[in-house]
Amino acid sequence: MELIEICRRAKEAKYKVQDLTTKEKNKALLKVADGLIKDTKTILDANNADYEEGKLSGMHQGMLDRLKLDEKRIEAMAEGIREVCALEDPIGEVMESFKRPNGLKISKVRVPLGVIGIIYESRPNVTADAFALTFKAGNAVILKGGSDAINSNIAITNSIRNSLRSLNIEPDAVQLIENTDRQVTTKFMQMNDYVDVLIPRGSAGLIRAVVENSTIPVIETGTGNCHIYVDKDADFEKAIPIIVNAKTQRIGVCNAAESLIVHKDIKDSFLPLFEKAMKEHSVEIRADKESIENLDGAVPATEDDFYKEYLDYIISVKTVSDVDEAIDHINKYNTGHSESIITENKDAAKKFLKRVDAACVYVNASTRFTDGFEFGFGAEIGISTQKLHARGPMGLKELTSYKYQITGNGQIR
Amino acid sequence: MELIEICRRAKEAKYKVQDLTTKEKNKALLKVADGLIKDTKTILDANNADYEEGKLSGMHQGMLDRLKLDEKRIEAMAEGIREVCALEDPIGEVMESFKRPNGLKISKVRVPLGVIGIIYESRPNVTADAFALTFKAGNAVILKGGSDAINSNIAITNSIRNSLRSLNIEPDAVQLIENTDRQVTTKFMQMNDYVDVLIPRGSAGLIRAVVENSTIPVIETGTGNCHIYVDKDADFEKAIPIIVNAKTQRIGVCNAAESLIVHKDIKDSFLPLFEKAMKEHSVEIRADKESIENLDGAVPATEDDFYKEYLDYIISVKTVSDVDEAIDHINKYNTGHSESIITENKDAAKKFLKRVDAACVYVNASTRFTDGFEFGFGAEIGISTQKLHARGPMGLKELTSYKYQITGNGQIR
Repeated sequence: MELIEICRRAKEAKYKVQDLTTKEKNKALLKVADGLIKDTKTILDANNADYEEGKLSGMHQGMLDRLKLDEKRIEAMAEGIREVCALEDPIGEVMESFKRPNGLKISKVRVPLGVIGIIYESRPNVTADAFALTFKAGNAVILKGGSDAINSNIAITNSIRNSLRSLNIEPDAVQLIENTDRQVTTKFMQMNDYVDVLIPRGSAGLIRAVVENSTIPVIETGTGNCHIYVDKDADFEKAIPIIVNAKTQRIGVCNAAESLIVHKDIKDSFLPLFEKAMKEHSVEIRADKESIENLDGAVPATEDDFYKEYLDYIISVKTVSDVDEAIDHINKYNTGHSESIITENKDAAKKFLKRVDAACVYVNASTRFTDGFEFGFGAEIGISTQKLHARGPMGLKELTSYKYQITGNGQIR
Repeated sequence: MELIEICRRAKEAKYKVQDLTTKEKNKALLKVADGLIKDTKTILDANNADYEEGKLSGMHQGMLDRLKLDEKRIEAMAEGIREVCALEDPIGEVMESFKRPNGLKISKVRVPLGVIGIIYESRPNVTADAFALTFKAGNAVILKGGSDAINSNIAITNSIRNSLRSLNIEPDAVQLIENTDRQVTTKFMQMNDYVDVLIPRGSAGLIRAVVENSTIPVIETGTGNCHIYVDKDADFEKAIPIIVNAKTQRIGVCNAAESLIVHKDIKDSFLPLFEKAMKEHSVEIRADKESIENLDGAVPATEDDFYKEYLDYIISVKTVSDVDEAIDHINKYNTGHSESIITENKDAAKKFLKRVDAACVYVNASTRFTDGFEFGFGAEIGISTQKLHARGPMGLKELTSYKYQITGNGQIR
């Protein structure tokens, strides 16, 4: 199908999806979850074709792992949809209501965004995830997945559409752009008359490409150059487990730590403990001039290192004279994601919370908690690193907008 | 000064502005208001240079009027700033606060957006307005006004900066891009590392240019193809004054009505009354096939007319069979600004409020009320017609973002 026709259909569908009741949406989500289980064989066959293709073309093992589906992963996809079904419906909430002196009654009411475009890479489970969240928030969605997972994505989308159709719900609530040509993707990013918001999910490169080419409003997600600052008043028994957790529990995620900042007054006592812990987890250390003398196995850090989101077993180290210098360093190099201070000093903590410019700022906790589930939102479509519209973990509410409904009895200006 | 240096300074300044207390900001705003009055002569001299230049280059009379300042207009600018000073400071508000089962305390706190870029045309009063609102919401601002008003804008910005400096507040809280070359403006729209949000204020052409060229998140404002739908159950004594008000009270504004939609069952009785009222205000009528037979002096409307924001003494007329067709027509042609239904029928009103896709949807009132002052927000930076971040009149709150502040005692995942 032509891109323009997909967009037209999505715009038609959004009016139908926004009219669905919570009950209708929930019934549909359960049906879709059951449908995915029922269609397991078809989906796995399609996925296998993608996987074989990926192997033949020399796809990296990590990518192959993310691409691969099995019965358990399809069950997890269905379970994820059931969890979204259990979440509260944000649509229709009266956010504010007031009466003006001239008698006009103004209500600010939560409404869907409309048509959401999701551009993502080779993880086919995003297809089901993104549908569930956008649909529950009353939106129509257009999905553009990576070419590597095209057969899987077609099979999953077809399964969802069939389930919707069986309940007489407009199947165009979810559509997949099957043509994965770059030109089509670029054209999609300029369909302002049809698409209300674009959300890219994936690598920094993908997100940059969308930001640069899109004329549709974009929500940037998921680049995290996250720091842990160990203050002079830090409790080392908190600091070490937090750094180990933030750096090594899962290295490839956006809320993993990439850099340690250490106060000069404690570097002699703290850095040897830090290095020991990093060695136990085979983490390479790239250290600045001041810290490298306390670190036996570290290599010198370049300016470039401080800008890097390694997503690997590597951490940079920067020494500072006080909390102000730590804050300035973070505000210069970070990506606005998650930052943590380890300190028992309330003033330092307060200053750090106030002045660090990031979506999530922590005191004495791991940056790994920046996550929709960990925040209690139940699910997330991504972590926003921009300041417009939504910041940090984005749940259902962040997939909505609002409108003002104004009732009068003949008022004029 | 080079653009990059302006951007660097704004990024430095934002950390200082966000640390100011409400008292410090208010004191500064009052000083700035007094300063503008004190500098009246300098500002008027500069403005006169722009005005003479405009006349020489054959500027349209309407544009010249908007460009022209006098003592009264400078007083109004100062008064506008004092009004912003009186508004509640949105910064620091704890929007939500909750504790997770693992003991993490999470607070969602309102913070400034950071650096805001405003791109506007030849109205020099925007310079003072935009500073006051962005500053009160804790932001640094970079202004890019039209070349036609460059001398006025330099004089106003200098006055504001001098007032800030006299209170030891960072003058780079407000900067003007004095180089009005198109290339510089385009480069400005791609300063993602420094500027958090761009807000264009002006014509549809300006806004389109910003949306197409910016890689920074944009808030689209102020294009209004607004409709009034007169239902079969309308009270004509409400309908006529509302249409006259919405169409003619001020023709050049975005919340003015551009199109009448009429239910076929009442067109014979209503349209003659409508035509009489329009004639009294010299409004040209462009009518569809069904309505033109009831209108003596109307010309036929083309498809193109229904897409037009005339901003002139012209109105289009479309006939429909029911409220559903009216809603579909609006959702096809509107710009998401303001739409009104005139009806005594509660079901029709309810359907219209729910299904029309626009920032502000009215029952029995003029679309002219879509305005920050009329909504009680005290002031506005513009009317957003997009769904991301803010919709409708944007006051101080809409110039803010939020961050999550999370306090733990050693939590790891």
